[in-house]
Amino acid sequence: MTDNTLSPAPASRTPLTLLGTGAMGTALARAWLAAGHRVTVWNRTPARAEALSAEGAVVAASAAEAVAASRLVVACLLDDASVGAALEDADLTGRDLVNLTTGTPEEGRSRAAWAEARGARFLDGGIMAVPPMIGDAESGGYVFYSGSGALFDEHRDTLAVPAGTRYVGEDPGFAALHDVALLSAMSGLFAGVTHAFALIRREDIAPKDFAPLLASWLTAMTPSVHLTAERLESGDYTEGVVSNLAMQSAGNATLLRTAGEQGVSAELLTPYMDLMARRVADGHGDEDGAGMVDLLTREAPKD
Amino acid sequence: MTDNTLSPAPASRTPLTLLGTGAMGTALARAWLAAGHRVTVWNRTPARAEALSAEGAVVAASAAEAVAASRLVVACLLDDASVGAALEDADLTGRDLVNLTTGTPEEGRSRAAWAEARGARFLDGGIMAVPPMIGDAESGGYVFYSGSGALFDEHRDTLAVPAGTRYVGEDPGFAALHDVALLSAMSGLFAGVTHAFALIRREDIAPKDFAPLLASWLTAMTPSVHLTAERLESGDYTEGVVSNLAMQSAGNATLLRTAGEQGVSAELLTPYMDLMARRVADGHGDEDGAGMVDLLTREAPKD
Repeated sequence: MTDNTLSPAPASRTPLTLLGTGAMGTALARAWLAAGHRVTVWNRTPARAEALSAEGAVVAASAAEAVAASRLVVACLLDDASVGAALEDADLTGRDLVNLTTGTPEEGRSRAAWAEARGARFLDGGIMAVPPMIGDAESGGYVFYSGSGALFDEHRDTLAVPAGTRYVGEDPGFAALHDVALLSAMSGLFAGVTHAFALIRREDIAPKDFAPLLASWLTAMTPSVHLTAERLESGDYTEGVVSNLAMQSAGNATLLRTAGEQGVSAELLTPYMDLMARRVADGHGDEDGAGMVDLLTREAPKD
Repeated sequence: MTDNTLSPAPASRTPLTLLGTGAMGTALARAWLAAGHRVTVWNRTPARAEALSAEGAVVAASAAEAVAASRLVVACLLDDASVGAALEDADLTGRDLVNLTTGTPEEGRSRAAWAEARGARFLDGGIMAVPPMIGDAESGGYVFYSGSGALFDEHRDTLAVPAGTRYVGEDPGFAALHDVALLSAMSGLFAGVTHAFALIRREDIAPKDFAPLLASWLTAMTPSVHLTAERLESGDYTEGVVSNLAMQSAGNATLLRTAGEQGVSAELLTPYMDLMARRVADGHGDEDGAGMVDLLTREAPKD
């Protein structure tokens, strides 16, 4: 933050339309307004959009009118169905549609085909931030983008105003896939943390004394994902393994007995232990955890 | 590593006995031998102990003889029952017993009472390292210790030779509890990572390109444990919550649908989602995750 002086909005800043002014949409609109962009907003319930007019936004009476106002159209709505509903009557010909609505990879892909059939270029986005992080370059928040590389390249600077950008490929499903994969991993992290705090809950151990030990341990373990990636690429799951699945699986008994002693349900731990035990039973006790990725994929029911 | 010159072993270095020369015990013995300690070793199967005699260890013919050789006795055996069996005929009077055998908090407490009844001081330890990290000051490996603070203070320098030390209290169960809590949290982290890699497994996304995104995301999320600790201490689970449980729980639907699309079993994610849904159903949708710690503890069956 060596220069936080805002210059007056130059005429050259790309005007844009924002559909959806919930908490995230409002944060996005404010970031673009603050950077001097002309922002046209629309919201299904108009009151929330009106609040932004005092901050310089142009409020459109309909989504179709909002889309007509700018070539660059950003959607940040409740879900994918809301995107289809909002844009039903809009003319998308020649528009650049950037969809920041939360969805699945398949929703991203089918929405891309839908938009392209209507004459628009399409870019899907997955926001790795909560609204207070938007417009704060120090927050570390960013957005995964995938789909039209030409659209991304042309609007890269505008898209970078509210948060950092990470373009992950032409497949319009990849932004959502990266988003969901990281959130899923976080869910596992939080499950483990929840169990760990529960274990000490009835003891004379201050959570604030325990937290630094927990944080530094997890931070030290996280780089193991690079080794897992190497193993998944090479297909060699046993080379140089120090603590193999057979040893880890045997050690899980101590984790379960400790949970029992401390009066903590082991429900958050057992599925991973069960998957590990299945991998060992399949004759892979000499591997590390990489092979469990394949087991989790192979055992899933097919569509 | 400003000084890696080993001085000749001074006579004042504390002699010690090590019971158990498996992979971890052997690594410990080598670290102490390298630092110039006189080390007496014993192993139930003698061959593994014999290998250390070439490196300067004194091999005892029985555990009782090994215990008689040094006041400081370190046990690193298969499990707690092995400790009781090995020391059955040993005279522990006046001995300082440091138990690095993996076990539960209750095993640590009962083994402490057992050792004290036999005239020994007792310290329990939980090793946060794998054997290749032992004796390598750069590895970050360390040992949790709890039990006799007097024993720990007296032998702190000797105990610090193979790995860093963290004394966590007089309760002899606390070392194992800290050890298991951190391993349990790691298990959750690895479960989330396994699911994340499985999600991208069938796509044209290189694991090596995905791993840095995953690592930096998890590293960015880990400091949230400090906020969880603050909430658990204050009992206020709602102040300043940005993404509350009701919102997170609604968002879980996207994670589950994505798993289905990608052909990945959601078994590693669903228990945390189910716990979250129960907390929301209990009327706590405005909280963040801290309250789930209480739910996990309260619902466990009592002894």
